[in-house]
Amino acid sequence: MARPTPLSGFPEWLPEGRVVEQHVLDTLRRTFELHGFAGIETRAVEPLDQLLRKGETSKEIYVLRRLQEQEADEGRGEQAGLGLHFDLTVPFARYVLENAGKLHFPFRRYQIQKVWRGERPQEGRFREFVQADVDVVAAGELPYHYEVELPLVMADAFAALADVGVPPVRILVNNRKVVEGFARGLGLADVDAVLRAVDKLDKVGPDAVADLLRAEAGASAEQAAAMLDLAAVRGDDVVARVRALAERHGARTGAGGDLLDAGLAELGALLDAAATRAPGVITADLKIARGLDYYTGSVYETVLVGHEDLGSICSGGRYDALASDGTTTYPGVGLSIGVSRLVSRLLSAGLVTATRGVPSAVVVAVTSEETRQESEAVAAALRARGIPTEVAPAAAKFGKQIRYADRRGVPFVWFPPTARTAEGADAATGHEVKDIRSGEQVPADPATWTPPAEDLLPRAVPGPAAG
Amino acid sequence: MARPTPLSGFPEWLPEGRVVEQHVLDTLRRTFELHGFAGIETRAVEPLDQLLRKGETSKEIYVLRRLQEQEADEGRGEQAGLGLHFDLTVPFARYVLENAGKLHFPFRRYQIQKVWRGERPQEGRFREFVQADVDVVAAGELPYHYEVELPLVMADAFAALADVGVPPVRILVNNRKVVEGFARGLGLADVDAVLRAVDKLDKVGPDAVADLLRAEAGASAEQAAAMLDLAAVRGDDVVARVRALAERHGARTGAGGDLLDAGLAELGALLDAAATRAPGVITADLKIARGLDYYTGSVYETVLVGHEDLGSICSGGRYDALASDGTTTYPGVGLSIGVSRLVSRLLSAGLVTATRGVPSAVVVAVTSEETRQESEAVAAALRARGIPTEVAPAAAKFGKQIRYADRRGVPFVWFPPTARTAEGADAATGHEVKDIRSGEQVPADPATWTPPAEDLLPRAVPGPAAG
Repeated sequence: MARPTPLSGFPEWLPEGRVVEQHVLDTLRRTFELHGFAGIETRAVEPLDQLLRKGETSKEIYVLRRLQEQEADEGRGEQAGLGLHFDLTVPFARYVLENAGKLHFPFRRYQIQKVWRGERPQEGRFREFVQADVDVVAAGELPYHYEVELPLVMADAFAALADVGVPPVRILVNNRKVVEGFARGLGLADVDAVLRAVDKLDKVGPDAVADLLRAEAGASAEQAAAMLDLAAVRGDDVVARVRALAERHGARTGAGGDLLDAGLAELGALLDAAATRAPGVITADLKIARGLDYYTGSVYETVLVGHEDLGSICSGGRYDALASDGTTTYPGVGLSIGVSRLVSRLLSAGLVTATRGVPSAVVVAVTSEETRQESEAVAAALRARGIPTEVAPAAAKFGKQIRYADRRGVPFVWFPPTARTAEGADAATGHEVKDIRSGEQVPADPATWTPPAEDLLPRAVPGPAAG
Repeated sequence: MARPTPLSGFPEWLPEGRVVEQHVLDTLRRTFELHGFAGIETRAVEPLDQLLRKGETSKEIYVLRRLQEQEADEGRGEQAGLGLHFDLTVPFARYVLENAGKLHFPFRRYQIQKVWRGERPQEGRFREFVQADVDVVAAGELPYHYEVELPLVMADAFAALADVGVPPVRILVNNRKVVEGFARGLGLADVDAVLRAVDKLDKVGPDAVADLLRAEAGASAEQAAAMLDLAAVRGDDVVARVRALAERHGARTGAGGDLLDAGLAELGALLDAAATRAPGVITADLKIARGLDYYTGSVYETVLVGHEDLGSICSGGRYDALASDGTTTYPGVGLSIGVSRLVSRLLSAGLVTATRGVPSAVVVAVTSEETRQESEAVAAALRARGIPTEVAPAAAKFGKQIRYADRRGVPFVWFPPTARTAEGADAATGHEVKDIRSGEQVPADPATWTPPAEDLLPRAVPGPAAG
């Protein structure tokens, strides 16, 4: 078989890259658990009708078919109605409904899994990738304070990654009620069309968005200009500035004005809490619209500072109806980190690297195949105390066994007594361990010797390009 | 939307079950890393031609199709040639070939991922399930001692699970060279047919296997009886007993006899090492054949003692050609744990349970929505010291907030100073924390208080049916 080539859009890492990805995943899990989110995992497949509820994403879905299934069975066969999930929100909504009687609400959950999208691959866009989601979902009512809490959980998660070289993030927040209230106050009724147009601002620029607002949302030139003024607001003091803008454009009237005030009160509360609890991380940006129409309150996007070209690496928002069984409606708020997108950049840009690709801190040398069990006994003693250890593959010359360790970045080589005897020491000589970086070799006891903590396991550390 | 029902063959766990599964996964990872295996993860899809190399499994494969792909494009489209992997060996072989120049051999890797098979679901058989594999693969030659080491790694992994209630396992080993040498010594040439027949022993019984040996492998009644005698050997002293059996049946002659002797020497070495390093766990069982034809040396199956009806929960073997690029051949040896099959039984039989389903060790009470930030500050202080903490969802009566914690199994409720003032204490009263199991409430400092270690996170513990 010829050497296979990578499949575009399906990223894989070498062991060193996996150390970095695993560190990111472990850090996210630890942070989410510190905040009281329970981990769940859902199956990779969902019924197609569930996946298609959002309509617009249908073209991205991978449908499953059993290889031996007859073409004639398709559409009728047991498997014909299944597709791979394209996010973790749809499966979570289904899980909540399916298990509602066994869950406690508000239910705080995190979920870290692969998702699949049949998109054309490009830089930072994958067909298979890992997402890490946190959501709080309630049965009936979901208080606003969760919209404040959730982005702060993500701010904590990114802060916990800073020491390995992950650049700082900026979490950009907006509130749908502000945009909708402002639009309605201006007299624009088709709010979804307004949001879709504003959502394209970064891609097509303000002139094209003004055209879209006129063509799609029925806006006059003045109304379009006012919406663009709103979308330009970001940074400090946004509540007062939006209020002034609404006054100037006469948008603070009627039901739209009330909604605007409600949205500004929420946004202001979020920004106040964020200023105290994660200074400098969370900022308002009134152009954040999010394309999806199910968001009803706060919306979030996140940029990696210095890597804004990646797009958002952590997005989400509040939705009044994550799911509904006809009797109970389940509102929620959540954010999702694009882990593969983030890790891909961390590795390709040299921001984070691994100290080594193998777990072993020690290679135990083997004097002869007859005494391999002696080396295995040393390894077992070290492992029993939590020290990752492997035994050399062959009773080769010790120089070769040291090179075996060196090539893998394993810091220590252990020589059992028979190795010392073989080297000409007298038979009473015991165990020795060599730090192959310094060359220093010292007597050691398998029952007590411990490597420095930083050598115990491979670690993610700042790479050459880290700030 | 009506309440969804589970999909047969696609298991999911409630948060408590996920705590148990996560403990199993964490324990396997830690054990594999202690033995120096590097973690990798491969994409979920492989080209169909790779998946079909083994032929016989073709009917189990899920093929992917993009929903919007035209029927006419099928077979030509970019995605048409992709399927979900049905094990982790095929992807690992491809990964090794693809990255051979960047890996160090012998390459020790573990891999814990979902796999998919379009089988008819039944007890313990899933369509989507998690496997945990360890393999060592070499470029060129792979010494026999790895066939001794790998089942001992798995023995260690299962031993590390004993304290949470996982029953002991028995790892059953055989060696293809023994079976093949014995069969050839008897004069049976179609060894694959012999292995396929013997592999059915547990399912169809000795009489039906004898019929199969005669019909499929061209065996005489005497030859069939001799093979059944061999397959009945297990337990102690197998090397001497097989040797005596071969003498009695005249099977210790020619090339077959040499292969038999070589196989018995290997099997004996494995059993000797196992008796020292994992007493009582690994036993010889000469009926173990494994259906797959690529095994060339040791083969392994594993039963959970008392749950033999589950079938093997950890299987594998030695293969002389895991992969080949035409220049280099990569032999390997590995085992794969059926994690979902194991966890499903642990949960359904009440063998292992979780102390709670949520990570939070503490719920911080909220006196009023105006003072929520006071409670958030307590939570932040506790989290900063590694204590999973959440803040109560609403400033309800304290009894209700305590019930919120109690229903989730959260052991502690924290009352900040305003809560104490609200209860009538004087304004100087500080923080207090209540153990809601004992009802004991004591003064506490968010900067120093620590819960007992066993309460810090949810833990897997022996269930009501644990031995």
